[in-house]
Amino acid sequence: MTNTLTTRKQDYAQWYNDLVLKAGLADYSAVRGCMVIKPYGFALWENMRDTLDKMFKDTGHQNAYFPLFIPKSFLSKEAAHVEGFAKECAVVTHYRLKNDPNGGGVIVDPEAKLEEELIVRPTSETIIWSTYKTWVQSYRDLPILVNQWANVVRWEMRTRLFLRTAEFLWQEGHTAHATKEEAVAETHQMLEVYATFAEEYMAMPVIKGVKTANERFAGAEDTYCIEALMQDGKALQAGTSHFLGQNFAKAFDVQFTDKDNKLEYVWATSWGVSTRLIGALVMAHSDDNGLILPPKIAPIQVVIVPIYKGEDSRQRIDDKTKEIMKSLQAKGIRVKIDNDDSSRPGWKFAEYELRGVPIRIALGLRDLENNQVEIARRDTKEKATYKVDGLADAMEQMLKDIQENMYQRALNFREENTTRVDTWDDFVNVLDGKGGFVSAHWDGTSETEEKIKELTKATIRCIPLNNKLEEGKCILTGNPSGQRVLFARAY
Amino acid sequence: MTNTLTTRKQDYAQWYNDLVLKAGLADYSAVRGCMVIKPYGFALWENMRDTLDKMFKDTGHQNAYFPLFIPKSFLSKEAAHVEGFAKECAVVTHYRLKNDPNGGGVIVDPEAKLEEELIVRPTSETIIWSTYKTWVQSYRDLPILVNQWANVVRWEMRTRLFLRTAEFLWQEGHTAHATKEEAVAETHQMLEVYATFAEEYMAMPVIKGVKTANERFAGAEDTYCIEALMQDGKALQAGTSHFLGQNFAKAFDVQFTDKDNKLEYVWATSWGVSTRLIGALVMAHSDDNGLILPPKIAPIQVVIVPIYKGEDSRQRIDDKTKEIMKSLQAKGIRVKIDNDDSSRPGWKFAEYELRGVPIRIALGLRDLENNQVEIARRDTKEKATYKVDGLADAMEQMLKDIQENMYQRALNFREENTTRVDTWDDFVNVLDGKGGFVSAHWDGTSETEEKIKELTKATIRCIPLNNKLEEGKCILTGNPSGQRVLFARAY
Repeated sequence: MTNTLTTRKQDYAQWYNDLVLKAGLADYSAVRGCMVIKPYGFALWENMRDTLDKMFKDTGHQNAYFPLFIPKSFLSKEAAHVEGFAKECAVVTHYRLKNDPNGGGVIVDPEAKLEEELIVRPTSETIIWSTYKTWVQSYRDLPILVNQWANVVRWEMRTRLFLRTAEFLWQEGHTAHATKEEAVAETHQMLEVYATFAEEYMAMPVIKGVKTANERFAGAEDTYCIEALMQDGKALQAGTSHFLGQNFAKAFDVQFTDKDNKLEYVWATSWGVSTRLIGALVMAHSDDNGLILPPKIAPIQVVIVPIYKGEDSRQRIDDKTKEIMKSLQAKGIRVKIDNDDSSRPGWKFAEYELRGVPIRIALGLRDLENNQVEIARRDTKEKATYKVDGLADAMEQMLKDIQENMYQRALNFREENTTRVDTWDDFVNVLDGKGGFVSAHWDGTSETEEKIKELTKATIRCIPLNNKLEEGKCILTGNPSGQRVLFARAY
Repeated sequence: MTNTLTTRKQDYAQWYNDLVLKAGLADYSAVRGCMVIKPYGFALWENMRDTLDKMFKDTGHQNAYFPLFIPKSFLSKEAAHVEGFAKECAVVTHYRLKNDPNGGGVIVDPEAKLEEELIVRPTSETIIWSTYKTWVQSYRDLPILVNQWANVVRWEMRTRLFLRTAEFLWQEGHTAHATKEEAVAETHQMLEVYATFAEEYMAMPVIKGVKTANERFAGAEDTYCIEALMQDGKALQAGTSHFLGQNFAKAFDVQFTDKDNKLEYVWATSWGVSTRLIGALVMAHSDDNGLILPPKIAPIQVVIVPIYKGEDSRQRIDDKTKEIMKSLQAKGIRVKIDNDDSSRPGWKFAEYELRGVPIRIALGLRDLENNQVEIARRDTKEKATYKVDGLADAMEQMLKDIQENMYQRALNFREENTTRVDTWDDFVNVLDGKGGFVSAHWDGTSETEEKIKELTKATIRCIPLNNKLEEGKCILTGNPSGQRVLFARAY
């Protein structure tokens, strides 16, 4: 079969690439580091985007759109920010092509050089805060609760479909507040939104935490994150929410008069998730046969495959599959009938398994006569026979069960793969052996953190929120530590 | 009042700019030619986008996403295409910034020069057809019915908010077909979708037609369009649907084996509308007091303004407005209550008039006691008193009436401003006087078309579909003509 995947055991990275390509999620493009998101992958993204968008609106945010280009001087205004992004900027220097007078084809017109270079946005804090300056005068103009769905570009040298690409799609919330407390509360609220989305829709358990100074967003005072565990034992940062303090307000001189008529700098947050989430989804749940998609965001929740036997029963089988489709659609279930004659049922079974459709319904002549269907669950691979009567209710329930089962399975995996260690040897052995999250003491210094990374490639994924305080000794230096933090090797 | 607009009579262009800025649709940005789409403008765009997206999906299309960047050599592969876009390309030449060793701040790193320059997409035919080459082998892989929502960049020298900006948002459909007939049918189908959207949702009547060779999309065999008339008598191209023949298939060598096992080039279409439609919407309907938005796409369809008189009735007024809001929401009406104490009812009335909210409901103490409200219609400025009982039904009907009235008014305007002329003097007089569409004979040559443009600034907007054949003489040359075409000065 052409759709056979490399197994996870053989080569996890190759399995992932095979799967993304063969399931029709994405494709390589002719532009280095940029991917094509194919229709099936984009339909998945649309479901994720629309769900998140509703959650943003329900928490009072509105969408807007800011320019793709950022003047070079803007990026430089916040010192840490430019330091963080300068090395991966796509730079526009000219605005015209022309025919080479020497017959060399189409060339960049040297006379059309920009006075100031433009950066293709790697993130939009600077262009947005330069705009907020004109929107904010008084406390009455605050808060600003704005989100943007956009493409961004970060020139990565080593790219992987969805996980790390030069261009990716994301949303970036950028809010402006009159008080620190309000901005901090917003940062936490959006972290909660992300965690809820990851757990309830993607069926992917996440640890909420705060980053160490080393791992903070360039320009943030605090970076909060959700961290998920992939099946190969590596962690993946699935979303971040930044408390930016007054850094960008100061860089762009955004002040407001408060209720006491005093001039103050505005407080800021930003928060984002990206198409990287699709990579996380693939790696959190899928198996050697293909994707396993959580029902809530699967583009197709139920596929119906008719199995014809001779021409005379064909029409009756078709009528029955349509009847079933309608009864499922009436429950709001996303259904597809695949009655394409050019491929065989067995090929279709494998194809929808590869594509991760949560439930497959097969209906042949015998089934028709018995008023029943064969049901296959993608997550457990269980098969069972169901009566057509009451099928829609049963499928609605099964989709809920699958969603719940996928979450529980991923949660069990994470729990089995989170290890408390107290010695350096154990630390290294766990990282090199089972992998996963390692909960260990750390002395709180950047130097130690960097040394650990250098020695083991493990980073501090986060200091979990509501972390238990506990006296201990740093895994590397033996210096005193007040709490455990979460280490892992990560994507 | 701060929100007073320049009147249309004083200065139409200034009125438009004032209105876009003051109604909160868009803002200028720090990047030359790029705009910020503000939340209210973006909410309008979301309604337009979601409506169109559903129409695309209902006609069998799926969304996908292709890279922002196009290698320079790709753009050059279709001769007419590069000729059309070369003069307005934003060119990425470098991929890194660094600190100037001479202390000049952040500079472009000269060592990070791209081997081949990348163009920020002005349109995506080339990058998409380079991808389709890998997707298409056999007739079974066809048709490809894909659409993309994206930002594009065309370096315009003179820009105007929404109408002409360096970066804009749009959708671009790119379809691939096995036969010419199928591709032509697709081109027509999407033109119909656009016309239906413009007329039924934007309440903006359009003429469907085909462009002359001069006005064709760069790389198309035929460009179909919808043309709308603005209140100043100028035409605006509101959408285009291109039959691309086999031009891009040949440029990117996209062939397929047909049912007879013969190798053939694939047939193509592309079609698009952009945020320019928002400019069209503003100019088609608005007046000197502000926007007038068609109910079907208005972000807020009904605004309720409570008018308090003393504290003791306040709660009862609030309760009543909430009751009204819920009854309207139950009909699917988008409602907002504005009970913000920091501004007065009179200011709010002007503000929602400026923002074009179709219906305003005011409710004061007297109204409360009489179980009634005051209704103001934005399109006709009529006011009337309505009983609260049955109000939701009445408002639902009124929204329909407003939608219909706006379309009819725009249609009447267009009919009054479409003039048949048969002499050059009349042609010039109409253009310089009342403006609008001028229906006149033309000898069919590009030279004459260009000469007319040079003399009058009028272009042939289109040859209307199902045009009546009629013997006549060209308005300029007197040469024989078989049909009238539609001239106008245009945006």
